[in-house]
Amino acid sequence: MRLSIDCRLRYDVRAPTSFILAIQAADGADQDVHDETILLPPGITADFFVDAFAGNRFIRFLAQPGPLDIGYVAEVERRSVVDQRDFIGGEVVNDLPLTVLPYLNPSRYCPSDRLTAFARQTFGTRPQGLGQAQAITDWIAASIAYEAGTSSGATSALDTLVDRVGVCRDFAHLGVTLCRALDMPARFVSCYALDLRPADFHAVFQVYLGGAWRTFDPTRRAPLAGLVPIGFGRDAADVAFAATFGDARFEAKSIAIRQLETSSAPGN
Amino acid sequence: MRLSIDCRLRYDVRAPTSFILAIQAADGADQDVHDETILLPPGITADFFVDAFAGNRFIRFLAQPGPLDIGYVAEVERRSVVDQRDFIGGEVVNDLPLTVLPYLNPSRYCPSDRLTAFARQTFGTRPQGLGQAQAITDWIAASIAYEAGTSSGATSALDTLVDRVGVCRDFAHLGVTLCRALDMPARFVSCYALDLRPADFHAVFQVYLGGAWRTFDPTRRAPLAGLVPIGFGRDAADVAFAATFGDARFEAKSIAIRQLETSSAPGN
Amino acid sequence: MRLSIDCRLRYDVRAPTSFILAIQAADGADQDVHDETILLPPGITADFFVDAFAGNRFIRFLAQPGPLDIGYVAEVERRSVVDQRDFIGGEVVNDLPLTVLPYLNPSRYCPSDRLTAFARQTFGTRPQGLGQAQAITDWIAASIAYEAGTSSGATSALDTLVDRVGVCRDFAHLGVTLCRALDMPARFVSCYALDLRPADFHAVFQVYLGGAWRTFDPTRRAPLAGLVPIGFGRDAADVAFAATFGDARFEAKSIAIRQLETSSAPGN
Amino acid sequence: MRLSIDCRLRYDVRAPTSFILAIQAADGADQDVHDETILLPPGITADFFVDAFAGNRFIRFLAQPGPLDIGYVAEVERRSVVDQRDFIGGEVVNDLPLTVLPYLNPSRYCPSDRLTAFARQTFGTRPQGLGQAQAITDWIAASIAYEAGTSSGATSALDTLVDRVGVCRDFAHLGVTLCRALDMPARFVSCYALDLRPADFHAVFQVYLGGAWRTFDPTRRAPLAGLVPIGFGRDAADVAFAATFGDARFEAKSIAIRQLETSSAPGN
Repeated sequence: MRLSIDCRLRYDVRAPTSFILAIQAADGADQDVHDETILLPPGITADFFVDAFAGNRFIRFLAQPGPLDIGYVAEVERRSVVDQRDFIGGEVVNDLPLTVLPYLNPSRYCPSDRLTAFARQTFGTRPQGLGQAQAITDWIAASIAYEAGTSSGATSALDTLVDRVGVCRDFAHLGVTLCRALDMPARFVSCYALDLRPADFHAVFQVYLGGAWRTFDPTRRAPLAGLVPIGFGRDAADVAFAATFGDARFEAKSIAIRQLETSSAPGN
Repeated sequence: MRLSIDCRLRYDVRAPTSFILAIQAADGADQDVHDETILLPPGITADFFVDAFAGNRFIRFLAQPGPLDIGYVAEVERRSVVDQRDFIGGEVVNDLPLTVLPYLNPSRYCPSDRLTAFARQTFGTRPQGLGQAQAITDWIAASIAYEAGTSSGATSALDTLVDRVGVCRDFAHLGVTLCRALDMPARFVSCYALDLRPADFHAVFQVYLGGAWRTFDPTRRAPLAGLVPIGFGRDAADVAFAATFGDARFEAKSIAIRQLETSSAPGN
Repeated sequence: MRLSIDCRLRYDVRAPTSFILAIQAADGADQDVHDETILLPPGITADFFVDAFAGNRFIRFLAQPGPLDIGYVAEVERRSVVDQRDFIGGEVVNDLPLTVLPYLNPSRYCPSDRLTAFARQTFGTRPQGLGQAQAITDWIAASIAYEAGTSSGATSALDTLVDRVGVCRDFAHLGVTLCRALDMPARFVSCYALDLRPADFHAVFQVYLGGAWRTFDPTRRAPLAGLVPIGFGRDAADVAFAATFGDARFEAKSIAIRQLETSSAPGN
Repeated sequence: MRLSIDCRLRYDVRAPTSFILAIQAADGADQDVHDETILLPPGITADFFVDAFAGNRFIRFLAQPGPLDIGYVAEVERRSVVDQRDFIGGEVVNDLPLTVLPYLNPSRYCPSDRLTAFARQTFGTRPQGLGQAQAITDWIAASIAYEAGTSSGATSALDTLVDRVGVCRDFAHLGVTLCRALDMPARFVSCYALDLRPADFHAVFQVYLGGAWRTFDPTRRAPLAGLVPIGFGRDAADVAFAATFGDARFEAKSIAIRQLETSSAPGN
């Protein structure tokens, strides 16, 4: 599937501010990025870098006071790599690849150390591995109400578990937290999403199962096949679409994702 | 300075349990590790690995039920690399090396996103950089009571700020949190410490200043020169001396650090 | 001083809902209420009652689905009873009147049990009694930013202490909490306030000092002389201007407080 | 049933300290207290008072530095007043007696405002009233592990809900919180308990149902018939067995409850 992405952000910069943006589609693995354009105002020079830990793509620059418009336009070719297995067992931590171990640790929004008893009690009788990850996803979908404006940047998965309400970011944090509490590596994924209404950034989570990261969306608000991952992190703190250091007010965003016609050209 | 380290841990393993230990002294940078021995019971085969992110050294193995004794013995040569400058200015985030950026993010025990206002109000008039880091350390030393048994594995820097009491781990978390809240990269350091009474693992924090990580110990319970770093993390969750996945009860530990006679041999 | 009060509330009632309103000016002590009118839609029969514990005045009724308009109009004669003493010492708990003891306990929004160390450290050297209460008020005024929309119904005084921002309710909760942490009985006061901009319900706190409840307003947004107390509680949970049990959405409120011309009639 | 109670408390008083004790069995309603003796050291003069709000009995005195031994000895005649009805419906708040309304409010350890969604989701389909109260009790008994030493004086019902572990006080707080979240007045009851192992103070909760307060014990550690209520409060903060204001360290307690032989005398 080929998707076009158009993302625009507007800020009111009040003082010199360092920006670190994570808005570029991830390149490699399940998708290739084509025709990528980053629109920055004249006079701004940006660093484009990939972090060594998770391979995330960041854009960093310093903005001077004034209005600031940022744009990201790209086409992304998604490869369909759906695992059709009904059963994937869990793995003991001793057998996990070393690179996934950090995703067992609790993090800012995913205090998995506190949910061990709850997770074992609620999901412990399900088959380890895919069975538990799927049960967690179903449980979140059934138990947490999706309601815009009910959470903030301070909301952790504990809050969401207690309050039973949140947005995509909170749903993903709770999924990550519960999987880690059952000793399954889990990570937060920021993404673009086809057919999400209203169009916006989206968030889902991945669990390391059967040798690969598998994606779960407890919000069920967009088809998995149309997700375009941006960044992978321990939680939203690692892949904020825009982290600002200085004084900048977010003013507006506009996001559009479209599926492109598949060419009928020979060989395609 | 040359130090000998002897660390013994005892567990009661109740079910097959994966262990990930971070008890080896860090090798490189400010210290060299010699004559290192890891004592594991017969029949246990361990992975020894260095994580790609922070260069931490981990030991991983699977233990079967029964008593488990683990030992670590080594000699460490510390190089004295004290920076004598009285003033090191702060840096804008746009100029920081990319590898230190993850240490600006909030983490499980260091929710720096919530302490921005407090940190600016309390330390904002100090000179950016070393001045603020030093003021934070002094403030913690003056404001937080050191009292064993007052915190738990669930205690965050917010709790410590409110309750005004904690242990070395809590002091370090609060230091990390306040520095990050002022846009300074900061990390948690687990360590051995000469002259710590009673002998135990210790924890301090580092701030990235003037192109290097500088160490601060708001507990003031052991001389900085006698610290032997083990691991560097976003917080204690990354460098737990022992993370266990299964069912193992910690029973006892014994730690001894001694300064070795400096040889008077020629050329030393 | 004589003040006129006009308060209007509008709800959209979605299902049969019990209302408990605390919007009537307190009657007795420092003020007398005259010409009081409560406007309820035809067909609603209300209980008017005074609770035995704190003497608060409540209005209770059951509303059926549909729009609901409530009004409260009254004139209140405030007696000026300002205590001019510069010094009022603290009292040991053993000497306090029994009726004020419940105001030493922690409550939903005032977890004073956790702020003992902070309060002693920050205010412990001030003269016990009025000196500490005044120092707490000054400290809150200097340390906490007043900003609409920064807190919610879940915000406790711990949150406000950490986040350093809030509204009048949060300022009052923090004052109550810090006084209780120093063993001074303290209570939350909901009120109307002359010259508050924008006009709204207001909240302050009282401390039991020298045999009487004395009022403090750390927001400094309205003159103390123009405050018209409504209810006194352990915290806002006890004197919510409207508690609803059912399904009713708050839609709008309008509050107007005016100072009435003092009659120049003989004998006045 | 007639029970003998013997309760001893020992403190190390470090500075002059006001004590407020709630250790006397409640007198009236379901039980009569006989042959009551309060043992205080010579030279201590105590206030004995009943608070106007909940009718709780308190002992207040000032203790000077030194060891302090307190004793309470009494015989209590419990009247069996078990309601045998299988069904008691819920009441709308508008129809509740005014004196029970304060027990609808959230309190320090019972933040019922945050558990509305959870309570409705989990218990909302049960019959209102006794059905929900019983379902809540059963759910706590099945979901929360009883484990000494797992909670502290800072632990709220939210913590217990998340951590799934606690002691009798935490079980009672969670019961209170969930009932209030469903608009049922609920209160915390401190008590002595026959056949509790090990012997100690105990805590249960009551819900106002069918015109009376009915008792529930989600710990199921002692028979309801052998409970001897001491105090009734919004939560444990209101009926601490000993609140101290000064500097006193709790050292030891010893509690013994025995069932007394029923006399076979004629007419008994």
